[in-house]
Amino acid sequence: MIGPEIDELMRLLARLPGLGPRSARRIALHLLTHRDELMHPLADALVSTAEAIVPCRQCGNLDTTDPCGICQDPGRDPTSLCVVEQVGDLWALERTRVFRGRYHVLGGTLSALDGIGPEDLRLAELIERASAPEISEVIIALDATVDGQTTAHYLADSLSGAGVTVSRLAHGVPVGGELDYLDDGTITAALNARRPI
Amino acid sequence: MIGPEIDELMRLLARLPGLGPRSARRIALHLLTHRDELMHPLADALVSTAEAIVPCRQCGNLDTTDPCGICQDPGRDPTSLCVVEQVGDLWALERTRVFRGRYHVLGGTLSALDGIGPEDLRLAELIERASAPEISEVIIALDATVDGQTTAHYLADSLSGAGVTVSRLAHGVPVGGELDYLDDGTITAALNARRPI
Repeated sequence: MIGPEIDELMRLLARLPGLGPRSARRIALHLLTHRDELMHPLADALVSTAEAIVPCRQCGNLDTTDPCGICQDPGRDPTSLCVVEQVGDLWALERTRVFRGRYHVLGGTLSALDGIGPEDLRLAELIERASAPEISEVIIALDATVDGQTTAHYLADSLSGAGVTVSRLAHGVPVGGELDYLDDGTITAALNARRPI
Repeated sequence: MIGPEIDELMRLLARLPGLGPRSARRIALHLLTHRDELMHPLADALVSTAEAIVPCRQCGNLDTTDPCGICQDPGRDPTSLCVVEQVGDLWALERTRVFRGRYHVLGGTLSALDGIGPEDLRLAELIERASAPEISEVIIALDATVDGQTTAHYLADSLSGAGVTVSRLAHGVPVGGELDYLDDGTITAALNARRPI
């Protein structure tokens, strides 16, 4: 009843994260009824972005240039490296505008279950970058999950010979978080890491 | 930090129904990291669908042909017309495979608040189609909202001279619905339209 073109469009939309068959149908219909304002511009944006954006060979960030804007920026602190799992984590950290050093995108975390070992991550590149004389600190900003923390400890071990300070993000109560809704692990971590006011 | 190409892509994605800035960011990142499997095919599907799909001049459906597949299908019952607000409603009815007649997409509902009057809808076309000698029934399948029902009554009035039976969808308890969670209006309608078992 609905033609194969729309079916294919809905099938592809349904594969986007957070969308399912119903929301894909709704979006496909919205696109078809807003062709000039939305459908054509979106198609153009997809094509031009797919062509323009390349991964940075140095840090793994996505940008229009390689090395990326952050790696090329002379205003960035050359002494510190922040290790993140994915580009989305890099974006999240950049939004805070607190960290002024450079990044290293690991491309994943170690996972015995998923068969991801050290050789599947950009680990050799990290050790090489961290061993450069100008680097003094490596901040490990991985997820506070089991895989993330396992990877963090593995990284700390691997970096022990690089002559750098290795640190990780603090655990604790999220800003705006209510104690009543927090898990025991977070409360324990926050209590153990308590600080004088 | 994130280039203007990605910003533009995220801005367009955030305008899709059901998506906001956060989900648009997540989708943009997913697309950039799945370029060959998803980003290019999606761009191609958008372009080819936007080019291939046209509105049917007769019923208002969207299809690759004009008149659309449903209007052209000789297996369709030529005596009944089903009036829907939007193409999405037509798709919803087609999924049930119960109605075998043809459709008429009104393109909206009357709304004093939004300044939508009869001349903004495909109403003259409906009356013309309903006046054809072969049409014996017009089923009004509009939303059970205030605007939908106002429009349904207006349509029933407008069609009174066309020599057709005008009917509307039944109101009642949705299949699988629990009485406890239903509004008073639905329960009242279901009670008034009660049927012997």
